[in-house]
Amino acid sequence: MNAEIIAVGSELLTPYRLDTNSLFLTGQLNLLGIRVMRKVVVGDDRRELHDAFKESLARVELVLSIGGLGPTEDDLTRETVAELLGRRLQQNDAILHGISERFRRFGRTMPAINSRQAMVPEGAEVLENTRGTAPGLWIEANGRVVVLLPGPPQELESIFLKEVQPRLARRNLGLRLHTRDLRITGLPESEVEQRVAPIYTQYAEAETTILAAAGEIQLHPRIWSSDAAAAEKILDEFVERVALALGKNLFSTAGESLEDVVARTLQRHRATIAVAESCTGGMLATRLTNVPGSSSYFRGGVVCYSNDLKTAWADVPPEIIEARGAVSPEVAVSLAEGIRQRSGATLGLGVTGIAGPGGGTAEKPVGTVHIALADEKGSREHGFRFPGDRDRIRHQASQAALDIVRRHLLFGAHGKA
Amino acid sequence: MNAEIIAVGSELLTPYRLDTNSLFLTGQLNLLGIRVMRKVVVGDDRRELHDAFKESLARVELVLSIGGLGPTEDDLTRETVAELLGRRLQQNDAILHGISERFRRFGRTMPAINSRQAMVPEGAEVLENTRGTAPGLWIEANGRVVVLLPGPPQELESIFLKEVQPRLARRNLGLRLHTRDLRITGLPESEVEQRVAPIYTQYAEAETTILAAAGEIQLHPRIWSSDAAAAEKILDEFVERVALALGKNLFSTAGESLEDVVARTLQRHRATIAVAESCTGGMLATRLTNVPGSSSYFRGGVVCYSNDLKTAWADVPPEIIEARGAVSPEVAVSLAEGIRQRSGATLGLGVTGIAGPGGGTAEKPVGTVHIALADEKGSREHGFRFPGDRDRIRHQASQAALDIVRRHLLFGAHGKA
Repeated sequence: MNAEIIAVGSELLTPYRLDTNSLFLTGQLNLLGIRVMRKVVVGDDRRELHDAFKESLARVELVLSIGGLGPTEDDLTRETVAELLGRRLQQNDAILHGISERFRRFGRTMPAINSRQAMVPEGAEVLENTRGTAPGLWIEANGRVVVLLPGPPQELESIFLKEVQPRLARRNLGLRLHTRDLRITGLPESEVEQRVAPIYTQYAEAETTILAAAGEIQLHPRIWSSDAAAAEKILDEFVERVALALGKNLFSTAGESLEDVVARTLQRHRATIAVAESCTGGMLATRLTNVPGSSSYFRGGVVCYSNDLKTAWADVPPEIIEARGAVSPEVAVSLAEGIRQRSGATLGLGVTGIAGPGGGTAEKPVGTVHIALADEKGSREHGFRFPGDRDRIRHQASQAALDIVRRHLLFGAHGKA
Repeated sequence: MNAEIIAVGSELLTPYRLDTNSLFLTGQLNLLGIRVMRKVVVGDDRRELHDAFKESLARVELVLSIGGLGPTEDDLTRETVAELLGRRLQQNDAILHGISERFRRFGRTMPAINSRQAMVPEGAEVLENTRGTAPGLWIEANGRVVVLLPGPPQELESIFLKEVQPRLARRNLGLRLHTRDLRITGLPESEVEQRVAPIYTQYAEAETTILAAAGEIQLHPRIWSSDAAAAEKILDEFVERVALALGKNLFSTAGESLEDVVARTLQRHRATIAVAESCTGGMLATRLTNVPGSSSYFRGGVVCYSNDLKTAWADVPPEIIEARGAVSPEVAVSLAEGIRQRSGATLGLGVTGIAGPGGGTAEKPVGTVHIALADEKGSREHGFRFPGDRDRIRHQASQAALDIVRRHLLFGAHGKA
């Protein structure tokens, strides 16, 4: 079964906003074995909307639309689809009652304009919206299915999962998408490609996508199959071979973030951590505390930009800063050891570097970063030179620092391969 | 002049990746007075691509495509468009030379496959790509313009600005888009809407969009006009009236982030700041150091999750934590005063709260946050209860904290309206 997604809203045709709901819908549809063939964004314009639905219905069996179900005159999806399919709109008293009850619960009277949201095309099934006023609609016509969903993500997601998913699952027996989400760090995209291409080219049944972000490569093998056991077996074998080719650089086969993996590993080792950051400016602490329950392994962190605070807050001897410079292996080590000592954590992590755009020199250009990890046995420093702008350098530095913690805990001796 | 944008690539039809290039293109096209009527995403499929281009060319004068210009067999944009327009592909020796030179500069030999990128449809203008191998292409046919651009953002942006923008500016004289980008914090969307609706409904010539993010509302009035002076005058008047209605909650009329505004304000007041964070976990420090040159105003920060580190690193008396709890107005004040003292900054900012999902109680539910700002005269505390999940609560808390600094510096007495 093939689908297209139409996102409706003039704000989605400005430079300020993207449709992101289609990612959720695509993920859910794929799990049901439904492929998304095209995504379309149109404005709140009757003719554009009409044409978009008409064209999509000529191409695929399933058309899902996002948005345009609000109470105002700009919201045209209901009317346009009813007209296109030759269905009259009828007021649904149950919906009207639900909407006015909803307003009453919040101590307000339903504005007259909201009664538009209770209009339903003849023969449509109403998909209850427990999170907002506009219900979704399921319309079957000429062997096609049209699903209209509201734009607010929590409403769309809840209606999809409760109402649309079961209906589609009943219609679309058989084919399903099987997938893995592999995450790699510490290697450039070209190197990952070179190592895994000889493997994935041998799996013609899998579509494999490589995505690169700052400090992270993702590998997504996807198999469409009606034989779940066979597909899962192939994927297991694929992952096993890729894991061998990538070694310690592969940090998740289940789409976890690096901070999630580090959090889990710290907890399993009953280790705690504290950080002393300069160029990452708090990003390392932020990522370590993104994970719920982080207080069980994260002791605390200091962000010490100035030299005097490196000394005052992490006991970096001023003479080391004087002799080697604030961005140096020695200062990274001293930050790591100092913060470990001061926090009582089992691990101390120190980061110092030049995120730019200013501050670089010929000897220490923008992108130079030193990261050190200290434990009860001592410490080890790693030097980097990251490309890109300030934001990219900061992100790559935080990624490298987290990976040093992961390798240390999993492979020992800071995990140098 | 109307345009459509076609983003090409099967990876854009997975749950993992969005087309974001179209935001840049839309912004640039709008400045040239060109409206984007529709955005389409299609996979690397000859028939889908063919249909998408054919349909767009039937609707609008200008079609821009993103991606599908690489060297592999999956990259079909060039061939498909040439076929659709009935143009033969010819090898362009200058491009071929350029690509092979580019490989030579990086010490490599050009793979034979890359010669596909030197194929040019008859009559097309080549748009030089100084950042990569695939040039852009400008093709005029039957009064329409088709522009093919490569997918990597830095390549697309550089080709657009150097090659496409001037060509479009010559064709599309007259109509231009005039706009403002207003940023508001400290008010819910419904309150902003209520205050500004009576104003923007009086400006029929302006399309006004309201966008809501965590802790921030954006207001974008847009006027399409060939009379620049008149449009700018209307926008100035609009902004003046909106500014009156929103008061201190309006923090930028030029699309700046709150940290940019706070950074500029700190610098103008020759003030410095240090932060002691608990629930925001480093996010406040990260945002304050996002801005290049932040070392001129940011002294440093501590992230103290545990009670003992609140005492050790920010001098919070243990008996206050004991008596009032770690999440309390008193601890926020103590964090602010302690960190100000320890860092030597002119301002100290303290944040303590419950980001969840765990840790909430009936008395102090998830979302409870206390923020205090200390200066040489004393300190002042603000209590909040933020809705949403962990990430949203942390972001709103950092936003509120930055806004407290802005109001203090601009309006004094922490700017309570």
